[in-house]
Amino acid sequence: MAGKIALSPLAPERFPDLPVVDGVTFATVAAGVRYAGRTDLMLAKLVPGTAIAGVFTRSSTRSAPVLDCQNKVGLEPYSGAAILVNSGNANAFTGKHGVESVAAIAEAVATTCGVPPERVFTSSTGVIGEPLPHDRVIAKLAELDAAQDAGGIADAARAIMTTDTYPKGAVQTVEVGGQTVTIAGIAKGSGMIAPDMATMLVYIFTDAKIAQDNLQAIVSSAADYTFNCITVDSDTSTSDSLLMAATGASGVDVTGDSTFADAVHTLMQDLAFQVVRDGEGATKFVEITVSGADTAVNAKIHAMAIANSPLVKTAIAGQDPNWGRVVMAIGKSGAPADRDLLSIRFGDVVVAENGWVSPSYSEADAAAHMKGEEINISVDLGLGEAVATVWTCDLTHAYIDINADYRS
Amino acid sequence: MAGKIALSPLAPERFPDLPVVDGVTFATVAAGVRYAGRTDLMLAKLVPGTAIAGVFTRSSTRSAPVLDCQNKVGLEPYSGAAILVNSGNANAFTGKHGVESVAAIAEAVATTCGVPPERVFTSSTGVIGEPLPHDRVIAKLAELDAAQDAGGIADAARAIMTTDTYPKGAVQTVEVGGQTVTIAGIAKGSGMIAPDMATMLVYIFTDAKIAQDNLQAIVSSAADYTFNCITVDSDTSTSDSLLMAATGASGVDVTGDSTFADAVHTLMQDLAFQVVRDGEGATKFVEITVSGADTAVNAKIHAMAIANSPLVKTAIAGQDPNWGRVVMAIGKSGAPADRDLLSIRFGDVVVAENGWVSPSYSEADAAAHMKGEEINISVDLGLGEAVATVWTCDLTHAYIDINADYRS
Repeated sequence: MAGKIALSPLAPERFPDLPVVDGVTFATVAAGVRYAGRTDLMLAKLVPGTAIAGVFTRSSTRSAPVLDCQNKVGLEPYSGAAILVNSGNANAFTGKHGVESVAAIAEAVATTCGVPPERVFTSSTGVIGEPLPHDRVIAKLAELDAAQDAGGIADAARAIMTTDTYPKGAVQTVEVGGQTVTIAGIAKGSGMIAPDMATMLVYIFTDAKIAQDNLQAIVSSAADYTFNCITVDSDTSTSDSLLMAATGASGVDVTGDSTFADAVHTLMQDLAFQVVRDGEGATKFVEITVSGADTAVNAKIHAMAIANSPLVKTAIAGQDPNWGRVVMAIGKSGAPADRDLLSIRFGDVVVAENGWVSPSYSEADAAAHMKGEEINISVDLGLGEAVATVWTCDLTHAYIDINADYRS
Repeated sequence: MAGKIALSPLAPERFPDLPVVDGVTFATVAAGVRYAGRTDLMLAKLVPGTAIAGVFTRSSTRSAPVLDCQNKVGLEPYSGAAILVNSGNANAFTGKHGVESVAAIAEAVATTCGVPPERVFTSSTGVIGEPLPHDRVIAKLAELDAAQDAGGIADAARAIMTTDTYPKGAVQTVEVGGQTVTIAGIAKGSGMIAPDMATMLVYIFTDAKIAQDNLQAIVSSAADYTFNCITVDSDTSTSDSLLMAATGASGVDVTGDSTFADAVHTLMQDLAFQVVRDGEGATKFVEITVSGADTAVNAKIHAMAIANSPLVKTAIAGQDPNWGRVVMAIGKSGAPADRDLLSIRFGDVVVAENGWVSPSYSEADAAAHMKGEEINISVDLGLGEAVATVWTCDLTHAYIDINADYRS
């Protein structure tokens, strides 16, 4: 599908140079899961002792591979591990057959890679409701095992794409106790993206050594402020998964180190922004901050109501500083707000204060801000001290084009 | 604005013949509220004894006229009354100035029409955040009073339009104790439409005699199953108002009569469907029924999650029987669902049973249903006995066209 859709105007200039992360290797192949000749299968192998943490969609209709991963991420890292991802078929809403496919693949990967089946993590992304032809996946495992390459992460980023218009990658290096650890991650996602979820498919690798529990805590917290704060269309995938693997191959123990946790947060934000920038049909990257709320939860409810409003998103597409629609979105969110205490800014332009248009408001200044590629909308509720920031994109004709055609 | 937007392909063939309702008269005029030369002001006068009930937006940023109406609908019908509606300016998010405008208009209408100010109900629809030029409204009151016409309801329906592509009206007659009462209603609305609200602007008139409390109970209940079950874009207006006036001029007392209540429900559903059929950019009218839920509230949460999903709505626009997106929407709704108990139908075509594609499923049959102008999606959750039905339209390029331009 990707070939039919124009590159997002918000795409980064190039895919970053992702370094080798000691302890993990990659290979990709075209398995014909849905389309012939398209690279659609990725196998990552991880050395014994690798800690693996994850966050997943909270959809009540989540897929068989997601349920399987959730059962496995808590285990202690006593052995090697493998991550297998296919695109083209989500193995979602496939009933008992879906569960059997996951089990069959996990057994086959375990045998091929010499790891226990409970250390095999699988993800599937693509069409919903069609049986996953798992024999085609299993038939390629020996080839994937033989082709493992420490430098294969960029190819892995491409293999997991569906409607994405560009591959997504990010890197961080951190000094801990005078030694360097590396964190590299890849992600896919451009539609069916909403928060209250892990999000999309995201795989992050580090050579740091870290206790399983601490890794999970870092991943869960960072996801809450990054992937769980983005939305393209308010729709939530049945397959969203984020896995982070710490191989320990550097020998540097980062357990409890805040610099490492900060770097993970930064890297996740980088990848999350890349997902928004590839939002289906996006032409604007939009940051929405709601401050002055009574609680952080309510700040986020307001921010997401603005971010998910079709009327706000179409106004941004039309470069219209339509702050009335921001007022509307706050009003409908269900969280507390006092109309007469609201203040609203577009970029640095104060639009409204004390519940009405600011005396200093210049429509020309606001319109100038809306012409940019990066839009900032700030709302202060005047009720308390809590703040939330979320990120989204505009709603354009291209979103309709992509989604009235593509079978997801 | 209406002239720039093509007539909805789902529009009715013609505006219905609305009969005179004894006890109410109408007049309209071009007051230049926002655009010169456009009929934008409507005054309805009601005889002494008219009972008036209402339901209103629950937006926390609701407009000054809405707050004013809410304070007035509970009063006993001791005198005549008036309803004044302007389009072009919503008098919303206009702070203290907005409150003053409402008070000034109510006083002037009261003086002109010889009714107490607390029996003057005003609504404003149009742009948000700009001061309402209430002097222009007040300047036209004498003219409106002089031009009152019992047959003016069709003109009134046109005067309250904004982005609507056609005026909306409906009529019911009911036999009560061998005597006939008439109910006639008008509505406006095509965007910024979502439930958990009264909805849009709706005015319903009857010559029946009815106790104030009973009228309010009938109106509230009927709105819950009609206007509160429609959605165009999940966005909620700051101005939604529904007023129903019972003049009593027929002398027929319908207090406690279920035939009358049923007729009000039928008429509200008729108007609500007309609003959906004029949904911005709509090409399909969509009915979504969720059955087998544990509670009616949860059935409606699921139904609205499907109705508001951009991915479901774009698939319908593309005539794609994409039931995977229906599964996704159920999964994200937050209400209880068991993936493996779901069954889904598109029209009469059984798509999925027991959590997977039905053995009898024919994509060709489902695709044939999707080509129609009226789409039915039914989901059975298999959890209980509760049911909810909601109505929406598809999401098309025209929605983007209308909303990336129009300043609401």
